[in-house]
Amino acid sequence: MKGLFITLEGPDGSGKTTQIAKVAEYFKEKNVDFIQTREPGGTRISDKIRALILDSEHNEMHDLTEVLLYAASRAQHVHEKILPALEAGKVVLCDRFVDASLAYQGFGLGVGEEPVLQVNNIATSGLVPDRSYFVDVSPEVGRERMKSRYGNESLDRIEQKDLTYHERVREGFEHIFSKQTDRIVRINGEQNPDEVFKEIAKDLDQLLSNHKEK
Amino acid sequence: MKGLFITLEGPDGSGKTTQIAKVAEYFKEKNVDFIQTREPGGTRISDKIRALILDSEHNEMHDLTEVLLYAASRAQHVHEKILPALEAGKVVLCDRFVDASLAYQGFGLGVGEEPVLQVNNIATSGLVPDRSYFVDVSPEVGRERMKSRYGNESLDRIEQKDLTYHERVREGFEHIFSKQTDRIVRINGEQNPDEVFKEIAKDLDQLLSNHKEK
Repeated sequence: MKGLFITLEGPDGSGKTTQIAKVAEYFKEKNVDFIQTREPGGTRISDKIRALILDSEHNEMHDLTEVLLYAASRAQHVHEKILPALEAGKVVLCDRFVDASLAYQGFGLGVGEEPVLQVNNIATSGLVPDRSYFVDVSPEVGRERMKSRYGNESLDRIEQKDLTYHERVREGFEHIFSKQTDRIVRINGEQNPDEVFKEIAKDLDQLLSNHKEK
Repeated sequence: MKGLFITLEGPDGSGKTTQIAKVAEYFKEKNVDFIQTREPGGTRISDKIRALILDSEHNEMHDLTEVLLYAASRAQHVHEKILPALEAGKVVLCDRFVDASLAYQGFGLGVGEEPVLQVNNIATSGLVPDRSYFVDVSPEVGRERMKSRYGNESLDRIEQKDLTYHERVREGFEHIFSKQTDRIVRINGEQNPDEVFKEIAKDLDQLLSNHKEK
């Protein structure tokens, strides 16, 4: 594996998407050979699975179905797009990965950490990011930002869930963060976007320079 | 669990579907309180997942994606339909279940037995049929029957695969059968349909009478 696999994680409304755009801009300036992608989605088949998961009519969807659909979408994404790019030596910049499934499904839905890890380990053939930035905001701030951005009505099936759910998701992220501090860098997402990016860029500089030396 | 969970398994062209109809007829005559269902599918969400899997345009679908999509469809089917029926004391008659995934994906695609079992154990929350009838025909006979029924062109993505694939599937069924003879009854599917059903009915009589005594 010659490439570098970087993910951004964080709850809805954390400003993750703004930061992804800033990181991509930074890579362009530095002439880094990279691809930018996102979960759920990233390939034709993954996008179709994504649409199935997020359809707000699918209220009867069982939690285990949701876990397995996310994993199916991820399996396609990893094997069709991410692994070939990494093998070609590229940097892969991905909006969400397994950590999001652990936080949202393992903790948020209450499916538990172990089954989500097992299923995703099979889906990804064991692929783990080299670096993950966890953009952290409180559930209240995340939710307020989502509401002011989209209004209540256009929120999808996941976003519509109650505040308790989003608090469990945050606990999930805390738990993952506490276990793997070497891979995951926590960023305070309640700062202004330029401050947030400054923190990410500081770590990225180091990461890219270490990677070049290898 | 008060009900009885019965599955029919076998390769394409084994005559499984004809037998399912005969078993349903038999249940009606005996006033058995039963539901009839099938995999992949069986619920609204499962049917949408099924359509995604079988779409003959999805040639880029990775084997692990296929395994996880089948499992997602099954999770919904089990938790929305099969478990509630069993808990209400009904007999559930199902066309294909986990054995089919083991044979087609574990062996046919070569994903391996262990990951397919792990994923499906999570999907089904450990549900195993009380009885499975394995309607056995050689890959050559199965394929000839499919061709004469549909012609070559209308075969779906799975059915289009080559004969070697279907031989591996049969090896898979053999392997599963050799491991669990108490649950699985093998039926010679190359006999005429009435003979095939006579064998199934003989075992079913015993099974239903034992179940009533409990």
